[in-house]
Formats: sequence, structure tokens, C-alpha cells
Amino acid sequence: MRRILVVVMLGLAVLAARSLSLYAGRVAAAPQSTAVFDADGKLKLPVGYRHWVFVGAPLTPNGLNNGKAGFPEYHHVYVEEKNLDVYLKTGSFPEGTVIVKELTRVLDPTFPDGSRAEPSGRGYFNGEFNGMDVTVKDSKRFANTNGWGFFNFGHHPLPYAESAKEASAAECAGCHASFVAKTDMTWVQFYPILRGR
Amino acid sequence: MRRILVVVMLGLAVLAARSLSLYAGRVAAAPQSTAVFDADGKLKLPVGYRHWVFVGAPLTPNGLNNGKAGFPEYHHVYVEEKNLDVYLKTGSFPEGTVIVKELTRVLDPTFPDGSRAEPSGRGYFNGEFNGMDVTVKDSKRFANTNGWGFFNFGHHPLPYAESAKEASAAECAGCHASFVAKTDMTWVQFYPILRGR
Repeated sequence: MRRILVVVMLGLAVLAARSLSLYAGRVAAAPQSTAVFDADGKLKLPVGYRHWVFVGAPLTPNGLNNGKAGFPEYHHVYVEEKNLDVYLKTGSFPEGTVIVKELTRVLDPTFPDGSRAEPSGRGYFNGEFNGMDVTVKDSKRFANTNGWGFFNFGHHPLPYAESAKEASAAECAGCHASFVAKTDMTWVQFYPILRGR
Repeated sequence: MRRILVVVMLGLAVLAARSLSLYAGRVAAAPQSTAVFDADGKLKLPVGYRHWVFVGAPLTPNGLNNGKAGFPEYHHVYVEEKNLDVYLKTGSFPEGTVIVKELTRVLDPTFPDGSRAEPSGRGYFNGEFNGMDVTVKDSKRFANTNGWGFFNFGHHPLPYAESAKEASAAECAGCHASFVAKTDMTWVQFYPILRGR
């Protein structure tokens, strides 16, 4: 009987520990990077990012950029909640942070500036998905570009590339370094949730 | 000894049940409305909505709407994952669905159309938070307006109103009924994730 009791108590301890770890996992998950690199060092296309926290939607319509915006056209920017939480506490993103910028076209323009009229007013509305750029913070891997790696999965409709090699500094990091080196290489000034207003 | 064993077994059963319910809660949460109404039938300001799934960002700048857009200016639209999942499977939102539209101004315009030039191109960037509109699907409560209730928490910077009474049909539901009655009173044509492209 005493042996049974010991076995039952052990089972109880295991279940209690599991219950606690589930609880801890939901309340205070330690940031762990979701960036996955293949054997060649290419970054795999992030998954599930549309369920991350959306932080802002810069819009550079072709119609306002001589017909060919560098990023056509809406930029939907997403950060994982666990990394956003650290940023809001500390003012910088933790190692391993992945930031996704998914592009969409504007919906069927009827004015030369790319806008159209809808019952809510004249303006811009999301058209088709049109590409993705991703940054990953890893101070060792990307030491040459201020600790961030830059990846372009194509600027075109779905499907995007399945993986992407690191973009050259001239393609991405150079511009970020020139303008936003002091704010963790990120355009935080465009994202209300990061500015807090 | 037998009594101790019974007590321990009971404890074990409770912990196991709790473990299972935690698991079920994470894997297959049945949609349950997060809409909270006070005693007067006013809707309380939704919380946590910036962590819901973002579906699109219509933009109606004041600069393109005679200086005074009906909705100034970015419209960030959020739906809870549990309700989005049902929509994507069935083509309609489940009872209790809450859709939040949070507004932001455009960031410091330098052109008459409200746009500005940034390294990524000329266009629009999110300025300050500027208000919130909410719809709730409840076929019984809102039978007179095609099963959806409409609520305006103010079109102004933070903080928004703590609660809002149902808007009259003339203010909101009338326009939705005229244009999007067939698509669950929702402008699904503006949201790539709902269109699937």
C-alpha cells in the first residue's frame, strides 16, 4: 500500500509540474527566435506571421512614385508579441527578433495617385498580397550590419520565395544604417504601438 | 491509509482535469464573444484588440477628402483569431464576433494630399491613434440592423470613450446595409486575408 502511495504521489508531482510549466509558458515565455536558417545560411520563409502583432502600415503607392515605388505598395509590418513586449520594456528588440514586412498592392486605382473613391471616402484600400521583406536581429551572425540581417522574399504576388539569402548592405542595411541606426535599425517612428501614441 | 490514498487520488483527478482543460483551451477554443455590455446596453471599450489578427488598413486621408474625411485617416481593422478561423471555413462570422477599426492620423503631411517623402518613397505613414469604431454580431440583440450592432468610441486621440451606446442606423448600419449586406455587413473586399489573396 505504501508503494502505491509513493507511485501516486510521484504521478501527482509530475502533473503538478506540468500544470505549472504550462502556466509559466503562457505567462512569461522567454523570447526564442523563430528565425530558421538552412544549411546554406538562407532564411526560411516565416510562417504564421499574419497572426503576429501588427504595428503599422506605411503606404508608398506607385502613383506617387513615378509608377514604380521601391516597395509596392502597402507595407504591413508585424512583430511577435514576445519580442514586442521586450521592446516596450527596454526600448530595444531582443536577440532573435524577426520583423516581417508584407506588401500588398493598392486596390484598383481610379485616380492617377493610385487612390479610388469608396463610401468611406477617397483613398487607398488593400489590393493583392505583393511580397515580403524580413529583418532578423542576431548580433553575431550579422555583426557587419549593426546586428540585423535583411532578407527579400520577392516583391510579387503569392507565392513568395521559400527561402532568401542575406541581402547585401547596399540593398537594405545601408539605408537603415543611414537613417535609423540609433533606433535599433528599425523605423520605429512610423509605428504608433512602438511610439505609444 | 486507504483514506489518504482516496484523497490523493481525488487531487490527482482534479489536476488531470485542469491539465486537460488547459490543453483544450489552447487547441480548440469554442468562439465565445468578448463583447461586454453594461446594464444600460452600452458596449464596453474592447481590450487587447491590438493583439488580434490585423486584416487590412484602408486609408482615407483628410487631404483627399476636402480636409475632413468621415474616418480620419488610417483604418486598422482587427478580428479575433477564433472568429476569423470560422469565417475562413464558413464564409460568415460566428455569433458574438467583434470587429475593431482603430483609426490613426497620417504622419505630418508635407504635400496637399496628406503624403510626405521618406527614404522608402513618397506616401503615407501612421501618425497618432485617432479613434475607434466597433461592430458586434448578435442576431437577436441587433435584429433591426441585419444582426450587427455599431458603436463609435470617438474619432479623436487617446483616450477613447470607456463605453458606447449603439449607433443609429443612419450613422453606420444604413451604409453597411446599402453596400455590404450580402457579405455579412462587412467590407470583406478590402481585406486580403479574408479574400485569400
